[in-house]
Amino acid sequence: MDLTEKDISKETIFKGKILNLEKHYVELPNKQISSREVVIHPGAVAVLPIDNEGNIYLVKQFRFPIKRVLIEIPAGKFDSAEENPLECGKRELEEEVGMKAKKWEYMGYIYTTPGFSNEKIHLYSATDLIDVGANPDEDEFVEILKVKANEIEQMIRNGQITDSKTICAFYMYKLSKNTED
Amino acid sequence: MDLTEKDISKETIFKGKILNLEKHYVELPNKQISSREVVIHPGAVAVLPIDNEGNIYLVKQFRFPIKRVLIEIPAGKFDSAEENPLECGKRELEEEVGMKAKKWEYMGYIYTTPGFSNEKIHLYSATDLIDVGANPDEDEFVEILKVKANEIEQMIRNGQITDSKTICAFYMYKLSKNTED
Repeated sequence: MDLTEKDISKETIFKGKILNLEKHYVELPNKQISSREVVIHPGAVAVLPIDNEGNIYLVKQFRFPIKRVLIEIPAGKFDSAEENPLECGKRELEEEVGMKAKKWEYMGYIYTTPGFSNEKIHLYSATDLIDVGANPDEDEFVEILKVKANEIEQMIRNGQITDSKTICAFYMYKLSKNTED
Repeated sequence: MDLTEKDISKETIFKGKILNLEKHYVELPNKQISSREVVIHPGAVAVLPIDNEGNIYLVKQFRFPIKRVLIEIPAGKFDSAEENPLECGKRELEEEVGMKAKKWEYMGYIYTTPGFSNEKIHLYSATDLIDVGANPDEDEFVEILKVKANEIEQMIRNGQITDSKTICAFYMYKLSKNTED
């Protein structure tokens, strides 16, 4: 079965500083017409930083949409459509956690919410860390949290970590270290 | 440090069929004013269905925002703010995969994209499955995929599964079955 929905028309409803909103009309596989509300996002990079003692660096920050402080791995949007994912990851690791890393490994990407947005997050692990001092954006307020890798699973289990990119990154890191197959 | 951002004013930019868009002005911890673009979403439920032979049922569907067919666990939005998460999960499992389950376990919730949306997805595992025949919504076109639980990790590793809720649900299921602590 061809599952493709054909794009018929597009209306840009809003152009914002971090997202645009579009309304599309599409032709479904059964030839009927339907509408799709789409949040256009520039894409982002998230980094799992692990030091040589097995500590993982997380950030606590207030997330206005959910009115809560969340525990997440450092992450940030692309500055421009041309920005290289690795450069974006390096920038965010330094801005939010104050670290540089000698070793970077690409772990793949995730779609966070493909039902209504095109947001795609590239995931890296960063090891061999060097502390250079945090330097957050002026409207970014974060606290750094240092936890042992084996505590992360407990924090996911008990609901202390609920951010999807953080859970995915940690799992994909574990899978990348599992050399069974 | 108090990381809270105070809500000062709100403008509703768009009210749609699956999301609303709001622009807020907030007071940051340093008393400066900034704006926040927020996608209001009703919330959703995703279900990891596993039969007694260890098969997991996934759905392939075209996701218009990313113009791609994705492999995901069955999921759906709340019908109303009052809908019970378990009822929503039961409905989606039946609509998309044509299954009922005798045993449901709540695995927790995730925030998919807390930087710009309040979307929260509740995750369940569903076991002791009964085939009742799929009955998708009229504008929903899905194909069902049956894979062994141990193939899922390989599909995540090689990029066949990139949907964040699916990766989180499978990992949280594994954690819930791990009785080491």
